[in-house]
Amino acid sequence: MHAPHATSAAGTQDGHEEFDLDGDSLREECGVFGILGEQDDAAALTALGLHALQHRGQEAAGIVTFDGEQFRSERHMGLVGDHYTDAATLERLPGKAAIGHVRYSTTGETALRNVQPLFAELSAGGIAVAHNGNFTNALKLRKEIIKDGAICQSTSDSEVVVHLIARSQKQRSSDRFIDAISQMEGGYALIALTRTKLIGARDPNGIRPLVLGDLNGSPILASETCALDIIGAKFVRDIKNGEVIICERQANGEITIESSMPFGEKPERMCLFEYVYFARPDSIVSGRSVYNVRKNMGINLAREAQVDADVVVPIPDGGTPAAIGYAQESGIPFELGIIRNHYVGRTFIEPSQQIRAFGVKLKHSANRGQLDGKRVILVDDSVVRGTTSLKIVQMVRDAGAKEVHLCVSSPKITHSDYYGIDTPDPSKLIANQYVDHDAMCEFIGCDSLHFLSVDGLYEAVGGVKRDPKNPQFTDHYFTGEYPTRLVDLEAEKGNIKQRSMLREAG
Amino acid sequence: MHAPHATSAAGTQDGHEEFDLDGDSLREECGVFGILGEQDDAAALTALGLHALQHRGQEAAGIVTFDGEQFRSERHMGLVGDHYTDAATLERLPGKAAIGHVRYSTTGETALRNVQPLFAELSAGGIAVAHNGNFTNALKLRKEIIKDGAICQSTSDSEVVVHLIARSQKQRSSDRFIDAISQMEGGYALIALTRTKLIGARDPNGIRPLVLGDLNGSPILASETCALDIIGAKFVRDIKNGEVIICERQANGEITIESSMPFGEKPERMCLFEYVYFARPDSIVSGRSVYNVRKNMGINLAREAQVDADVVVPIPDGGTPAAIGYAQESGIPFELGIIRNHYVGRTFIEPSQQIRAFGVKLKHSANRGQLDGKRVILVDDSVVRGTTSLKIVQMVRDAGAKEVHLCVSSPKITHSDYYGIDTPDPSKLIANQYVDHDAMCEFIGCDSLHFLSVDGLYEAVGGVKRDPKNPQFTDHYFTGEYPTRLVDLEAEKGNIKQRSMLREAG
Amino acid sequence: MHAPHATSAAGTQDGHEEFDLDGDSLREECGVFGILGEQDDAAALTALGLHALQHRGQEAAGIVTFDGEQFRSERHMGLVGDHYTDAATLERLPGKAAIGHVRYSTTGETALRNVQPLFAELSAGGIAVAHNGNFTNALKLRKEIIKDGAICQSTSDSEVVVHLIARSQKQRSSDRFIDAISQMEGGYALIALTRTKLIGARDPNGIRPLVLGDLNGSPILASETCALDIIGAKFVRDIKNGEVIICERQANGEITIESSMPFGEKPERMCLFEYVYFARPDSIVSGRSVYNVRKNMGINLAREAQVDADVVVPIPDGGTPAAIGYAQESGIPFELGIIRNHYVGRTFIEPSQQIRAFGVKLKHSANRGQLDGKRVILVDDSVVRGTTSLKIVQMVRDAGAKEVHLCVSSPKITHSDYYGIDTPDPSKLIANQYVDHDAMCEFIGCDSLHFLSVDGLYEAVGGVKRDPKNPQFTDHYFTGEYPTRLVDLEAEKGNIKQRSMLREAG
Amino acid sequence: MHAPHATSAAGTQDGHEEFDLDGDSLREECGVFGILGEQDDAAALTALGLHALQHRGQEAAGIVTFDGEQFRSERHMGLVGDHYTDAATLERLPGKAAIGHVRYSTTGETALRNVQPLFAELSAGGIAVAHNGNFTNALKLRKEIIKDGAICQSTSDSEVVVHLIARSQKQRSSDRFIDAISQMEGGYALIALTRTKLIGARDPNGIRPLVLGDLNGSPILASETCALDIIGAKFVRDIKNGEVIICERQANGEITIESSMPFGEKPERMCLFEYVYFARPDSIVSGRSVYNVRKNMGINLAREAQVDADVVVPIPDGGTPAAIGYAQESGIPFELGIIRNHYVGRTFIEPSQQIRAFGVKLKHSANRGQLDGKRVILVDDSVVRGTTSLKIVQMVRDAGAKEVHLCVSSPKITHSDYYGIDTPDPSKLIANQYVDHDAMCEFIGCDSLHFLSVDGLYEAVGGVKRDPKNPQFTDHYFTGEYPTRLVDLEAEKGNIKQRSMLREAG
Repeated sequence: MHAPHATSAAGTQDGHEEFDLDGDSLREECGVFGILGEQDDAAALTALGLHALQHRGQEAAGIVTFDGEQFRSERHMGLVGDHYTDAATLERLPGKAAIGHVRYSTTGETALRNVQPLFAELSAGGIAVAHNGNFTNALKLRKEIIKDGAICQSTSDSEVVVHLIARSQKQRSSDRFIDAISQMEGGYALIALTRTKLIGARDPNGIRPLVLGDLNGSPILASETCALDIIGAKFVRDIKNGEVIICERQANGEITIESSMPFGEKPERMCLFEYVYFARPDSIVSGRSVYNVRKNMGINLAREAQVDADVVVPIPDGGTPAAIGYAQESGIPFELGIIRNHYVGRTFIEPSQQIRAFGVKLKHSANRGQLDGKRVILVDDSVVRGTTSLKIVQMVRDAGAKEVHLCVSSPKITHSDYYGIDTPDPSKLIANQYVDHDAMCEFIGCDSLHFLSVDGLYEAVGGVKRDPKNPQFTDHYFTGEYPTRLVDLEAEKGNIKQRSMLREAG
Repeated sequence: MHAPHATSAAGTQDGHEEFDLDGDSLREECGVFGILGEQDDAAALTALGLHALQHRGQEAAGIVTFDGEQFRSERHMGLVGDHYTDAATLERLPGKAAIGHVRYSTTGETALRNVQPLFAELSAGGIAVAHNGNFTNALKLRKEIIKDGAICQSTSDSEVVVHLIARSQKQRSSDRFIDAISQMEGGYALIALTRTKLIGARDPNGIRPLVLGDLNGSPILASETCALDIIGAKFVRDIKNGEVIICERQANGEITIESSMPFGEKPERMCLFEYVYFARPDSIVSGRSVYNVRKNMGINLAREAQVDADVVVPIPDGGTPAAIGYAQESGIPFELGIIRNHYVGRTFIEPSQQIRAFGVKLKHSANRGQLDGKRVILVDDSVVRGTTSLKIVQMVRDAGAKEVHLCVSSPKITHSDYYGIDTPDPSKLIANQYVDHDAMCEFIGCDSLHFLSVDGLYEAVGGVKRDPKNPQFTDHYFTGEYPTRLVDLEAEKGNIKQRSMLREAG
Repeated sequence: MHAPHATSAAGTQDGHEEFDLDGDSLREECGVFGILGEQDDAAALTALGLHALQHRGQEAAGIVTFDGEQFRSERHMGLVGDHYTDAATLERLPGKAAIGHVRYSTTGETALRNVQPLFAELSAGGIAVAHNGNFTNALKLRKEIIKDGAICQSTSDSEVVVHLIARSQKQRSSDRFIDAISQMEGGYALIALTRTKLIGARDPNGIRPLVLGDLNGSPILASETCALDIIGAKFVRDIKNGEVIICERQANGEITIESSMPFGEKPERMCLFEYVYFARPDSIVSGRSVYNVRKNMGINLAREAQVDADVVVPIPDGGTPAAIGYAQESGIPFELGIIRNHYVGRTFIEPSQQIRAFGVKLKHSANRGQLDGKRVILVDDSVVRGTTSLKIVQMVRDAGAKEVHLCVSSPKITHSDYYGIDTPDPSKLIANQYVDHDAMCEFIGCDSLHFLSVDGLYEAVGGVKRDPKNPQFTDHYFTGEYPTRLVDLEAEKGNIKQRSMLREAG
Repeated sequence: MHAPHATSAAGTQDGHEEFDLDGDSLREECGVFGILGEQDDAAALTALGLHALQHRGQEAAGIVTFDGEQFRSERHMGLVGDHYTDAATLERLPGKAAIGHVRYSTTGETALRNVQPLFAELSAGGIAVAHNGNFTNALKLRKEIIKDGAICQSTSDSEVVVHLIARSQKQRSSDRFIDAISQMEGGYALIALTRTKLIGARDPNGIRPLVLGDLNGSPILASETCALDIIGAKFVRDIKNGEVIICERQANGEITIESSMPFGEKPERMCLFEYVYFARPDSIVSGRSVYNVRKNMGINLAREAQVDADVVVPIPDGGTPAAIGYAQESGIPFELGIIRNHYVGRTFIEPSQQIRAFGVKLKHSANRGQLDGKRVILVDDSVVRGTTSLKIVQMVRDAGAKEVHLCVSSPKITHSDYYGIDTPDPSKLIANQYVDHDAMCEFIGCDSLHFLSVDGLYEAVGGVKRDPKNPQFTDHYFTGEYPTRLVDLEAEKGNIKQRSMLREAG
């Protein structure tokens, strides 16, 4: 359920057999960062912010700056550190204002032309847009505007927003922005850069996070607070669900910040998976320390599971905070029984000799001294298809564990996401493959198997149980209750693979 | 005046001093090739056709195919042979129909997103477009459509055509195509590919060339006949000036060819520089062998110049056919007194020791045995800024030549082109810098200097003198008489550098 | 003190300012792996073994195989996963027998020709050699053989071994091997591959580790047991200090293993830094679980330091096991107060705005929720120059810590290593810069500073205090007592920078 | 028989079918250049010299400089212009003295470690060596020194020279050099660089060329005079066959030049193929203009062949000078009936439609206007396997030629070369496949076929017929008479494929 850094691209391209276990994970689509600064270093600050948000997307990264006269753009496949650590690259990105984006693709093909930020030249000046999340009616809108003569270059749903901005009859670019997002549905955090403005918006439910920071008077928008910390910026507040915030450099140089709620106000329903898996443990999401929330999950899990054992072992790194909580609550010692290999990133070729738990061993190794002869509680953050869990349990048993109990600090996943999380086809989810708990336990090969309850999760995050009438969080992957309409899905009868008529190789 | 292959990109990027002489040349924008074939090898045939057209553009090459279901695209900076010789690349381009493009950029920045063919998804299906030439009102139209909500991704004027197609209210894609080009002015050869059609068009004056070929019943459109020869296709006829030709695969598999003249008929005015410099000597342009026409230029030049000398030496490769003509007419022996280095391509660093005629020597070397003690007639195809001529004359003198007479097989260049030829600022042209012929001769350092007269050129190409009332060819670079309006130029008061608000590296 | 993955090469090459903190760490030279197998997958197994040993060297990796007829070699700069995950690369390495090597360079320049394994063709057949460690008389021997006509291609001290093998008058390659190492002094683990043999050797003191494993009857030699675990091989035993082991495939296919002690027997003196820092926590080194040993260090440190605090926070990943031990012994809760960023690898450009603790923040971030208002015990494995510690303490204070106590699970480092560990110039070591403990504490900015005592370390590793007359381990970096002569150092009067007369770029 | 630039590497590596005709050519092994200069620009001058010698080897290029303290080396696969045009590369090569090398490999694998110059550190200082040619007893010597403990890194025969230098008991490096080459047999031009000396040597027969030049007092050694011309250096004289020349920078800065003839004096026997094919037409080889010699071949060929025709057409570029001579002698007009494509370099994928003369058409195209309805004399410099000739004749016929007469300006090739020219297996040579002249003519498909006689060639080069007792030139490829012993060939019974026990990929 970890190491989103590892990609199996090499494997598939060469056509040889693959031992990738990464299909057994969820992926977040994107992270965004923007600054309306005072010094000519907006790109360098954005590169650092994106580096801190790298866990939200490792496929590609892009930065657009405005240098007072022109917008400049660099977009590259790969990690932030692969490209934006180069002085020459940053020199091609002068300017006091910038927005940036890291992505892992959910919709749209893997190709450079899909890398954000996207840009449009308007008569009134240019606008660059970056977003995290997904629109549930993008396909419908795309068809409409193509019919009306628009030319769509990318296959990304983000492009639709840019077209709607370009086509808006409003005069001010911020009004065009609001005009455009008023037509979109889904879960998103959007940021935009015009000649004078840094604009941010969160969807009406607040499914995806977005925070406002401040660096010596310069406003910053970022997906998570960890992007503020790396540059020493102060956290100001969360952008509210349904809020549009417009930071503008006035003619006199002063920076004003204006907020509006064009969709009205309603309670926020933050995505629970931000707490369970996506957000970095040192981030503060909607006022809650992610690390503490995860420890709470471990504490609640210990109370629910009540397993007797010798040692609590996290599956690193995702399971570590919950394991610490579990150990503290249960009094069973916390030990690093599994060591993570930090040099993972590619899929190795399996030798002709069969290796048990191959694949998992590229990333994790058993620390025999803490497993041999012991009753082991393994703590993981989530289980998707279960294939990784199976191999880790096998590896732990091979290292001599007497008993292996798998404790998962989130509920069973049963439904797909349509708001920016890449989930496997529901039929591939272990919770759907094995409705019977014992069968699932047997498949994984553990002595016992425990998932945190939905209420246990709600309490860990928000302090109270789920309110079935007005759930406090977005939780459809566990419950099937979606917070919005799913327009495209219904129109396409479930087949939402958007496909351009033009395919382009990377 | 040669070796368009040589680029000085490395030089400028690294910022160190440059010894490039390539500014002293003209550059053609593009070459196009398209086929509506019967076998699944359209991309391989297009790659060969583009290879034969490589002299028309070495900066980038692109191919779009249609495989019966989807359009596929590959676009790469560099030579055709750098990318499209790779089996994997061609495998990503399945299909019986394809269009391709080689380019050297005149308008628009050097960037991959400007590489053609361009593509648009229409409600009725996709359309890919490639063109050679330039539109003289593209900027005006671009502003209008952006005002109307269009998003321009590239800075290429070709994109405007695609937008006009997308915005046309017509139903059939071929009608949309005619609708779009009806709004464009300039000099161009355009080809387009839809799901069933290969479309071609030449501007009303026929400034840029386009020919129809046939390969076992499959229609082909190409900039020059040499692209037909390489694949063994037959030459059918030239596309007429102002003609739109639509090759269509009917439902029964039959291929129909339909021609229309939406702008009416008028006499063709082919660009003279195609004969002087751009077209390959083995091509037949508007019914005339380019090699023979160039020999004629040399013959007429010999008659006009009447120089007494020991040897006729071409400046290779551009000056070779004219030198053969000159030698045959004058009876003075033709000898390779200058040898061309075929491994040129980069700008070398000049050593601290000063080297006379450095730069030129990277591409040409003096063959002392044919120069020492001799009276030499150097034959070149054209002189732009004169800086290369100066160095070649110097090099020939250094090799011992007693006299050096420079004979140029085209008239003096005095005006800029706006139809797809990259000309330096008029103030940089030697003919404008030295109005006095003797001063020009002195600058170049030759004993005498001769340019072919405009009438001598007309006779070499068309057999008769120039008709001042209705010039038979496009010749403004020599005469200042442009065949069309220059809308953008006038609107922008001479500043036609189109600049997007967004700059993108690479 | 961690993240050996991070390199600052980009920074120095481009010449711009650097914020690298990696100079503040120690580096191990190499890891080795070899197998005399039964199936044609020796290279794939070796790639996996090297991947598990990647922490011992990230600069380059090489594999040599013998396919029954020829030796094959692949050597590449970069990580194992960057090259040896490619099927084509492995296909170029057929054979049942292989040795491999990962390196970080201590002596010799950074260049491909220094990448091991090295190879020599002997009349009797070829021999490939890979080593971990350093020879203290290599320079002297190198001069002698050059005088005698040898041509040294690399600047690596390993090449001397190969030359000595080639020059030996012995007949059998294994005798030549022993002949060669008999002339070498220092600390090393060497493996070699001939047409029929896999040979291993450890220096007489056993400074560098080497273990024997078994995979279904095929002998394996590896630097650490974690390389056996990844391929499911069994650990057989440690190679003894001063032992030469020869695994040979006999004519009948049987594999024999022969051991000799050519230098006599004496007690082993394993390098203490293998326990403190280099070895992977899941490895068993000389019969001791590295993880458990590190926990013991933390336990002893807690007993020695006796700090009163609210939370024990490891500096990940190096300090984590000791922090767990410290927390268990002291009863103070263990929390992840510092989060490690897994995407580090390059040196980012610092923005013009000054960022406190820039550099450290690229790799580590403060988890404010566990630091704010707390008395924090930071646990690190070692302190070299102290510059990283200083910044981490600053970052922790900035996150609101009330007190910061730095507890280091090893003694102060005062002397250079000459056995394969890259140590800064002694004058740069913080222990030499600040002899006064309080001054050092003030420099780092912590409230109190504690190093594990030498005896505390000895007890953590071996269960008993240091025997000053016959120290049980190699510990000169803490004590100044070197286990061997330092021939080259003395001859060169301290200047042991070996420099070839030929410098070669990359 | 041309375009040595074209390589088919891509084709073979990918394993798909190839249409390469390059096997139908001879290849020269190398070109060398060296300078003992006065300014810190030896590398830039050497890069230019190597660029002028690029036709002698396109596979790789290397430069070694001495900066007064250290030797520096850069060696790269590819053209000189691919690497040595980069300022950063030249900055890594400081120094007033340099030697360089371009190569096409005959013996030894294609791998970077075989790229010259080679380097050895001697006690007395380093020595770098580059050579053009081949040693006929290298294998025997290699075995002897390996037996004696030498370690051979490359598979190049040049390495043996370096080992012999290193092993020489002489004191002065120049004496060691002479000592080494005294043991070598074959045909070669060797240059070497020590801390103070630039050394050159030609084999006793003078099979390979080497000239001495002068640039403002700095001595230069180069394979051909064209390398002097490009940097404006003066030609001083040819190095004599069997001469060793030592240019030395004395302590007072003065440069002395010393010559010796260690093998005694005898008449030179320059390789005829230098005149026929290898040398650049603007070079002066042994006092003869290569261009003029080739014209002479064409003149003599016209006298011998006596073909009646309408047009003389060279197969460019190799056949052009002879065609000019042929046309002048015969009075038949010279015309460019075949146009060379300058953008060749890769092997394109052939479409599924069969293309007549595919392969040839990638490099050459028929200029129909000069071929249609005509009786054509095609002039080529040589015919090796005949497969290219066949396709060119076919292409010319397809373009409408009424008659095609192939006139070759050199005799039939019947024997292999062992002095640095890569010849196909003798059984593949067309002259051996078709002993009957008419059958050969029929195979090629021409109306008549003419080879220049051996005496005709001798007269064209040296003015007199061949002296059968003491042939004035090296001519074994035409006559079977080798100028030296062939030690390795005899020892290996004809199998001279040298193969290292270690294979390494590039």
